Amino acid sequence: MTEHLYNKYVKQMTLEEKVAQLLQLAAPFYDEPGDESEITGPMEELGIGSEAVRNAGSVLGVAGAAKMMAVQKAHLENNRLGIPLLFMADIVHGFKTIFPIPLAIGSSWNPELAEKSAGIAAREAAVSGLHVTFAPMVDLTRDPRWGRVMESTGEDPYLNGVFAEAFVKGFQGDDLAGDHSRVAACVKHFAAYGAAEGGRDYNTVDLSERQLREYYLPAYKAAVDAGAEMVMTSFNIVDGIPATGNRKLLRELLRAEWGFDGVIISDWASIKEMVSHGAAEDDKEAAFKAIRAGVDIDMMTTSYLHHLPQLVDEGLVDEALIDEAVLRILQLKEKLGLFDNPMRGADPVLEKEIVFSAEHRQAARELAEKSSVLLKNEGVLPLRPEQRVAVIGPFASSGDILGWWSWTGSKEHAVKLSDAMRSVIGNPDLITVAEGSGIETITAEQKAEALSAAEGADVIVLALGEASDMSGEGGSRTNIRLPEAQLELIRDMKKLGKPLAVVLFNGRPLDLHGVYDQADAVLEAWFPGSEGGAALAGLLYGQVSPSGRLTMSFPDSAGQIPVYYNQFNTGRPKPEVEDGNRYISKYIDAPNEPLLPFGFGLSYTTFAYEGLTLSADTMTTGQPLEVKVTLTNTGSVTGTETVQLYVGDISGEVVRPVKELKAFRQVELASGETTEVVFNIIEEQLRYHHSDLSVASDSGRFNVYVGANSRDVLSAGFVLLK
Amino acid sequence: MTEHLYNKYVKQMTLEEKVAQLLQLAAPFYDEPGDESEITGPMEELGIGSEAVRNAGSVLGVAGAAKMMAVQKAHLENNRLGIPLLFMADIVHGFKTIFPIPLAIGSSWNPELAEKSAGIAAREAAVSGLHVTFAPMVDLTRDPRWGRVMESTGEDPYLNGVFAEAFVKGFQGDDLAGDHSRVAACVKHFAAYGAAEGGRDYNTVDLSERQLREYYLPAYKAAVDAGAEMVMTSFNIVDGIPATGNRKLLRELLRAEWGFDGVIISDWASIKEMVSHGAAEDDKEAAFKAIRAGVDIDMMTTSYLHHLPQLVDEGLVDEALIDEAVLRILQLKEKLGLFDNPMRGADPVLEKEIVFSAEHRQAARELAEKSSVLLKNEGVLPLRPEQRVAVIGPFASSGDILGWWSWTGSKEHAVKLSDAMRSVIGNPDLITVAEGSGIETITAEQKAEALSAAEGADVIVLALGEASDMSGEGGSRTNIRLPEAQLELIRDMKKLGKPLAVVLFNGRPLDLHGVYDQADAVLEAWFPGSEGGAALAGLLYGQVSPSGRLTMSFPDSAGQIPVYYNQFNTGRPKPEVEDGNRYISKYIDAPNEPLLPFGFGLSYTTFAYEGLTLSADTMTTGQPLEVKVTLTNTGSVTGTETVQLYVGDISGEVVRPVKELKAFRQVELASGETTEVVFNIIEEQLRYHHSDLSVASDSGRFNVYVGANSRDVLSAGFVLLK
Repeated sequence: MTEHLYNKYVKQMTLEEKVAQLLQLAAPFYDEPGDESEITGPMEELGIGSEAVRNAGSVLGVAGAAKMMAVQKAHLENNRLGIPLLFMADIVHGFKTIFPIPLAIGSSWNPELAEKSAGIAAREAAVSGLHVTFAPMVDLTRDPRWGRVMESTGEDPYLNGVFAEAFVKGFQGDDLAGDHSRVAACVKHFAAYGAAEGGRDYNTVDLSERQLREYYLPAYKAAVDAGAEMVMTSFNIVDGIPATGNRKLLRELLRAEWGFDGVIISDWASIKEMVSHGAAEDDKEAAFKAIRAGVDIDMMTTSYLHHLPQLVDEGLVDEALIDEAVLRILQLKEKLGLFDNPMRGADPVLEKEIVFSAEHRQAARELAEKSSVLLKNEGVLPLRPEQRVAVIGPFASSGDILGWWSWTGSKEHAVKLSDAMRSVIGNPDLITVAEGSGIETITAEQKAEALSAAEGADVIVLALGEASDMSGEGGSRTNIRLPEAQLELIRDMKKLGKPLAVVLFNGRPLDLHGVYDQADAVLEAWFPGSEGGAALAGLLYGQVSPSGRLTMSFPDSAGQIPVYYNQFNTGRPKPEVEDGNRYISKYIDAPNEPLLPFGFGLSYTTFAYEGLTLSADTMTTGQPLEVKVTLTNTGSVTGTETVQLYVGDISGEVVRPVKELKAFRQVELASGETTEVVFNIIEEQLRYHHSDLSVASDSGRFNVYVGANSRDVLSAGFVLLK
Repeated sequence: MTEHLYNKYVKQMTLEEKVAQLLQLAAPFYDEPGDESEITGPMEELGIGSEAVRNAGSVLGVAGAAKMMAVQKAHLENNRLGIPLLFMADIVHGFKTIFPIPLAIGSSWNPELAEKSAGIAAREAAVSGLHVTFAPMVDLTRDPRWGRVMESTGEDPYLNGVFAEAFVKGFQGDDLAGDHSRVAACVKHFAAYGAAEGGRDYNTVDLSERQLREYYLPAYKAAVDAGAEMVMTSFNIVDGIPATGNRKLLRELLRAEWGFDGVIISDWASIKEMVSHGAAEDDKEAAFKAIRAGVDIDMMTTSYLHHLPQLVDEGLVDEALIDEAVLRILQLKEKLGLFDNPMRGADPVLEKEIVFSAEHRQAARELAEKSSVLLKNEGVLPLRPEQRVAVIGPFASSGDILGWWSWTGSKEHAVKLSDAMRSVIGNPDLITVAEGSGIETITAEQKAEALSAAEGADVIVLALGEASDMSGEGGSRTNIRLPEAQLELIRDMKKLGKPLAVVLFNGRPLDLHGVYDQADAVLEAWFPGSEGGAALAGLLYGQVSPSGRLTMSFPDSAGQIPVYYNQFNTGRPKPEVEDGNRYISKYIDAPNEPLLPFGFGLSYTTFAYEGLTLSADTMTTGQPLEVKVTLTNTGSVTGTETVQLYVGDISGEVVRPVKELKAFRQVELASGETTEVVFNIIEEQLRYHHSDLSVASDSGRFNVYVGANSRDVLSAGFVLLK
């Protein structure tokens, strides 16, 4: 399949040209396209000569059709064999039209909308000249201290896999060569980056291989199976060896076992960083270990550039390894259609038309509506249009609602909450607005303004949260409460005795002490993206009923981390009703349970689950079990419920989680409406990694749980016969 | 070796007698020795008949020479073959003479005193009729939320191994059969119980096998190599399978690989608890898995008793497995000399003489002096005898200073801090005392009393801490600060503007916010045992200079857990001086470093380290490297310094810790005195577990660090040539 590429290009390339093809440079190298006479700044510092720039294979972070086309044009004029550059960037949750952060998209439990969002992101990115996005990020996350949980869809391996597939399909479509409104997806960060110890970014990861395979790997696998063209290695170690130099992980598992034949790219500088890790004595050994492990592209270091030629000369690296990496890159360029059309989707005219279009923004709004999670509501929400509302807090009129990884978005163009609320009711005088506090500071003046704004109000809406740079890459926190200044603002407002609703903007599950106990209603908005304010205004005023469900547990406190629903039972589980026994697995000063469990979310209506029935008491391979439950909208408005099905394996060859999500179904029901929800469970869904890492199910007893979240469920039992 | 035991006993035993020999029952079963006509209470509940009691092999928690002898006598009268009972109990840090908790003993960095303490505990236990102690506990601990960190010597595998050996030698001596003042040691909890997730007792453990072998197993191995006669399985899973049913862990690793041929005992009910774990469908399968894995004694469940006979009948368990377990138990009884003298060391007369003797208490006092760690001292300590001192706080006059696992000790007989301070100065009028607060409560009256006590004082000593049941088994906390009531007391006292010293009584590293920043001096007393008050009074008044050094890091906050000194560097380590780069491994709201690092502790004098020199720049196998440093007591009083030697392997086949403790030396120096401290490093000390689990060193660069703790060190480099 790649023979023609080999003959046409690789055979003609010098070793230096090949090695340069493996180099990825960032945008600053291309600030003056064509002007390579002067090598200054970062290039000089890194020791990258003009020849390497001329022969580089890909570029990171250049966007905009005109700019891209100029760079590509200059590149082709200088590149001996006329090999076009690949343009890549982090388009994680939208390009200019910013969608909610992935943790929020996960909360929608709506893979169709997730796919649509990725399709729109791809369309905007492609028309701006990009070919590859460094997304989706599908790291399993159990530690809200870690800032990058905002990039993940959460703590469940199955749900993450569902979204991984949706994102890949959305980005790539079916035909990358033919459909130039799509981009290649790069699944990251392979592997288990989300298990960083202490939630500290880039920190050590240690897992048993079974834990790795059972919980952390499935979402990457789902992305690869969905056809993701690229995989990015993670910064962390996997069983003691940095992922970027981990031959077992990349060649044995990813390539040989999973059959992945796309491009493997390092994360930013992660080849060179093997030296800091203490996994390579020097940069040369780092290059050796990375190429041997199977990394094709060196992102932003010169490890490959400076050392691979010598390693080949010395006979330490077989040139065939380098040919293989070059071929993979060329193959991707061919798949993208770049040899036929190096400008591909880049189109300065169309760019103006579709980027941040009304249609795209409407999609972003819809996803923001479906992503917000109503955490509490004691009769405050929805607001009534005639109410006088004080909107107070640092997010009342803030555009910092896009979240991390939205570098191409514009905070200025984000729809602000108070503006949107005024639009919704059409009577701006009913809304008073005050900043109330900064993110981490509060002044006497702000306090006075807040009191003044609240004075005539019937209800107070506090718009609070984390600045967007308090999560995201490098955004790890040890304290996951709202900053004290905002907690003070809540206490001040609480004293007024008025109904109090809190809207939260944040990139991680928070410890809600001082919020949940104070407010009458709490709406988790996450970072909702460009149309966030509009979506939230619609939710607050009941134009739409909230339907988001958490995909990461909200811990009681940081001292309880990690807390996740699919835990093991332990030998001394806490009983439903405590009997004073000290010797059970619990804390003496806090609950075992999170404040809010996985799958949790309220609506403006209520749903009743009744009559869970199984088609049989036993199940065999090849004969699915049918699970039925009757769902009724018992409230007064239409609402969407996410019916969740969990299975618990009573006893295994290794211990098994108390519950595992196996399926879910979203159902919209009008007030009073009833429906029957039916699931099928098959034997394959009961398989797990045994102690020898084989994947199989065991005969024996299982429980089925169906309900509104991982805590509130009906249950029934069956026996698997094999 | 055991043939005669087989012929004399096992061959004569019925299957039921054999299985009963594997049963361990608790004290209540023997409350009415000899009176077996009525089976009531726990026996009836558990379904244990009088025959099983008659044939049981061992008993837990019976102590006191007269009681033991009566039970043994009755047992022998009823036991067909005249096999004596083994008497076991948790004698963890003293019997009646309570030594500081093990975490404190670790802080002494004095294995000789640790051995001596175990010897005294053994002597008191043996004369009271005990044969086996469920100690030492040598679990590696990195999570201060876990209550059982108080039973461990801390976070370092090497130091834990040194203490493990010392404790085993202290308990067992050289000749268990001949020296009836010793008891057999049972090392626990095998394995990795200390890695309980979230610091929640009995919770899930997940580790890579390399992490398990490199960090968690060495201390157990050291105990086994030191001749520990027994090993207790842990409650947790090891790679998905409860330790108690983990054949790979027990038969393959402990027995085959390590050559352990002593007795393996389950932890309390941990065979039965495999059912709760979901690792056995029922009690019968639990018994099957435990005997197959190699567990000899079933502590306090009837899994073996009720199911092993049937499992043998059904051919699922080979009776030879049961014979093997019985033989191991009989062999231990023989080693202890029980067949010759079933009463062994039990001696009601000698018991009165030596238990809690002045000599033993003096040893406890000495160890408490050496275990306390001076964490901060801004010119307040030592107190001067002429000063008027207010001793305030819930521990000012509390006997709750023994700590968890001191059930045989007496709080009433513990020396209280304020009493001892009065004794030391000989002028009780200079000391005023107030409770100040409860552990978790504070009243207006207590506040007033505290103010009144402090009124005429020159200096305030606050005696604060955790109640002993806030750590220990089942004592996990999510919040590791002092309770708010005590922090309020500190703030109140701080307002008086007087010199403020805090003495802390607690069983874990604490988050010292509100303590360290408020007080002028902080002395970590841990739970110092029976003579705690006397030892602390001596330290406070400068009769002895503090010399303890932490063996677990004190985190900045619970949100930073886990934090330990022998961490990996990561690919993006935090530089010494930060340059504003977001993309390094750090928290945005807290330091990476603990408040107080491993090895840290102050003295009333100061020490200077100078002139670190290595005998060579290179090292080879077989040729040790000599490391010299000059140490000077630069302060004004005599003091003991613990010189610590760490090694850092710059680059490995797997990543290596930034520093690893390899040796330490305690040196007492008079004011102004200088000495040269010399260490030898050999190649064996540089070995580690590679990715294939082989243990070897690699040629390459290493750093040597010598200093007062894991943070403050001199360094030099060498190269290992192989």
